[in-house]
Parts: sequence; structure tokens; C-alpha cells
Amino acid sequence: MPKRDNISMSVIRRLPRYYRFLNQLKKEGVTRISSTELSAKLGLTASQIRQDLNCFGGFGQQGYGYIVEQLAAEIGRILGVEHNYHTVLFGAGNLGRAIAAHMDFEALGFHLIGIFDTSPQKIGTVIHGTEVMDTAIFEEFCQKDKPEMAVLCIPRTAVEATVDRLYPLGVHNYWNFSHYDISMKYPDAIVENVHLNDSLLTLCYQISNFKKPSAGIPAEKSKTE
Amino acid sequence: MPKRDNISMSVIRRLPRYYRFLNQLKKEGVTRISSTELSAKLGLTASQIRQDLNCFGGFGQQGYGYIVEQLAAEIGRILGVEHNYHTVLFGAGNLGRAIAAHMDFEALGFHLIGIFDTSPQKIGTVIHGTEVMDTAIFEEFCQKDKPEMAVLCIPRTAVEATVDRLYPLGVHNYWNFSHYDISMKYPDAIVENVHLNDSLLTLCYQISNFKKPSAGIPAEKSKTE
Repeated sequence: MPKRDNISMSVIRRLPRYYRFLNQLKKEGVTRISSTELSAKLGLTASQIRQDLNCFGGFGQQGYGYIVEQLAAEIGRILGVEHNYHTVLFGAGNLGRAIAAHMDFEALGFHLIGIFDTSPQKIGTVIHGTEVMDTAIFEEFCQKDKPEMAVLCIPRTAVEATVDRLYPLGVHNYWNFSHYDISMKYPDAIVENVHLNDSLLTLCYQISNFKKPSAGIPAEKSKTE
Repeated sequence: MPKRDNISMSVIRRLPRYYRFLNQLKKEGVTRISSTELSAKLGLTASQIRQDLNCFGGFGQQGYGYIVEQLAAEIGRILGVEHNYHTVLFGAGNLGRAIAAHMDFEALGFHLIGIFDTSPQKIGTVIHGTEVMDTAIFEEFCQKDKPEMAVLCIPRTAVEATVDRLYPLGVHNYWNFSHYDISMKYPDAIVENVHLNDSLLTLCYQISNFKKPSAGIPAEKSKTE
């Protein structure tokens, strides 16, 4: 696959939306969609969508639109959903349990192969079919199962030591729910942060500052991307 | 408070990071910090930070830096963390329970006053001190407790009907974990979306396309904002 490293994060962050939406259309039995219809439903301009897709070679035909199944499959390939990257989750607390049970990792390019925790109360329990193991055996586990991605649902204070342990074992990709900034120490690591606190504070800001008796809230306020 | 509706979302999304970081410094006993030190620790340029803070009137003094406690308090006020917006959470499944138990709503401008679900198995259970109530009594609950924000941890298919019910009752602000686009139907609503699937797909893209034998990954890859 060609390496694409000159594409802006804003374009990349729109791809999952396209993918999600096209899969939904596919489910509904829609076979073809014009860029105008697609743009209306996605709240983007048709030219934006064309521009985004052109970064990856362009799809669809002028005046004919996109073939839903084809485009979904193509975007899936661009995203890399077929990879099933071996994934481990650290931290079987409230959040970790929810993430393990709630997320459809398989549909999103990952395969959850192990959950790790330090608490004796949690070790041995099963979350959504996956056993919680003792972090003490992680080195051994790695030799056999070679995880490539780690979901970090552990407290901020524990993240640095955990990454210091995981990185030399070949785990260089992280879905990080803590506020610890992994990239500062490991600039090569691929990190996707989910900062729930920041998201809630952003909402607080918007309520506090955009609240109005009538309409006219800036359109971009509802965009997470 | 002056209404600030001309500030870009990129600036707004950096505020929680400043806030979080300054509070951490405060905890560590740091009383003053130069914009250079602050920028190094945050991975932003000093001029970016000055520019951001200037949107809100500017703080700090050339050559003296920022007084940590003052700046934290000021950003807290800008964010509106003192508001304690009455908040309800819909959906006591894995994700809803985790969010209710994991988030420190009080510190982030919100006060969780009720959790609602339709499942008889969940109604009556208690999550982190808050009872799960039957959604059937929500209208009655609203008359007494006047919630202003709703956290939506319900499936996409249930969101439209829920918002159709909540909006006329005065709940116009949403922290939305589903992929249903509330703003399409309610452009006045203030919505902050958390799209966990999209976040995971973005990580998948980055692993699939940025993976390299050596360093040189674009710096912006690790930014969620």
C-alpha cells in the first residue's frame, strides 16, 4: 500500500464519517449516491467531499455519483480495517470494562487479544469473553501473541511506566484515554488520544458562552473533528 | 459575562488543556511559569499560547510570565466550570455506567442529578451514588429538577426519539456518544460529540499509513484536537 503521509489530519478525521455513513447506506440497500446527496446528509459541501476523496485517488464519476458498496470498501481499505491489529487493553476499571464490552474492535481494524490489570480482584474475571490477566505476565504474553496496539484505560500516573514497558516490547501504537502525553517521550509512537475531560469542558465553554435566546450559534460548534 | 462567539473552535479546544495543565502545576506547588516553559510543556509555541489567551483579554506580563493560580482560575471562569449545570445521563449500559462512575462532572462544570434507562433490570440500581430511574418519569423529573444538559449513552437508533422528548422540555445541550447527528434537526442545540468509533478508525488509518521503520511521523498525528 502506498504510504500517505502528506494528507492533513482534518481530511483523515473525516474518513471515518464517510465510512460509517456509507456502510449505513449499504445496510439500507442504497446502491448509488450523488455527491450532492452525500454532502447534504453529511453536512459538508460536495466539493469538500470530492476534494477529500481526491487525496486518495478520487472515486465516482461526474454526473453518475458514487457506487456505495465500492466506495465503502475503498475507504475501508484506506483506513486499514482489514488489518486486525493485535490489541491489548490496560486497566479493567469502569472505563476499561466499558471500552472492552462496548467497542466493536473487529469492525474497526483491531482484534482485542488480552486485558491486563494489577488488581487481584480483577485478574481472572472475564469481560465480554476476554480474560483479565496479571500485568506481571505481559512480557511472556508478548512473546507469544505479539500485540501491536494498546488501549490505555489506566490512571495518568501509571501511563508513563506502562508505556516504558510496552514500547521496548514492540507496542508502538496507543489508544490513550489518559491525559499523559505519550508523544513527548516517544515521538515515534502513533497515539490517538481520547480526552473525555477536555470534551466535557469544551461543552461547558459552549453552554456558558454560546447560550442565546434564539438561533445563530456558529455552525462549527457541533463538530468534534 | 460577555458572550464570546467569534473565537475559533481550535482555540476553544486548547483551553481545557491549558486548564488541566495549570491545575496540575498548582497541585505541584508551582506558583509562576514563563510562557516559554508553559509552551515547552504543552508542545505549543509561546506565541500560540499568547495569541490564544489574548482572545480572552490576555494574561501575564512580558518578562514575568503567568501566575499559575490566577491563570487557572481565569481559564476556569472562561470555561464556566463554576456553573454546575444540572445534568442527566441516558443509558445505563456499559458505557453509561462507566461515564457516570469515571467522570468527575462536578470539577468540569456539571452536576449529575439523574440517570435514566428503560430496562427494568437497570431501573433502581445505583451507579456511583446516583439512582437509575425509569425514563417514563422523565417529564415529572424535569418539572422539579430542570436539567440543562443530557449525556447520551444510548444506541444511535434511540437518540432521535430521546432528543425529540428532551428538547421541548428545555434540555438543549448534549454530550453525545452516539453517531446520531443532533444538529441536523436541532441547529440551536449545543452538541459535543464523542465518536469513539471514529477515533479508533483514525488510529487504524495512522497505523496503516504512517508505520515506518524509523522516525519521521508527522507531528500532528498525535493531536486529537
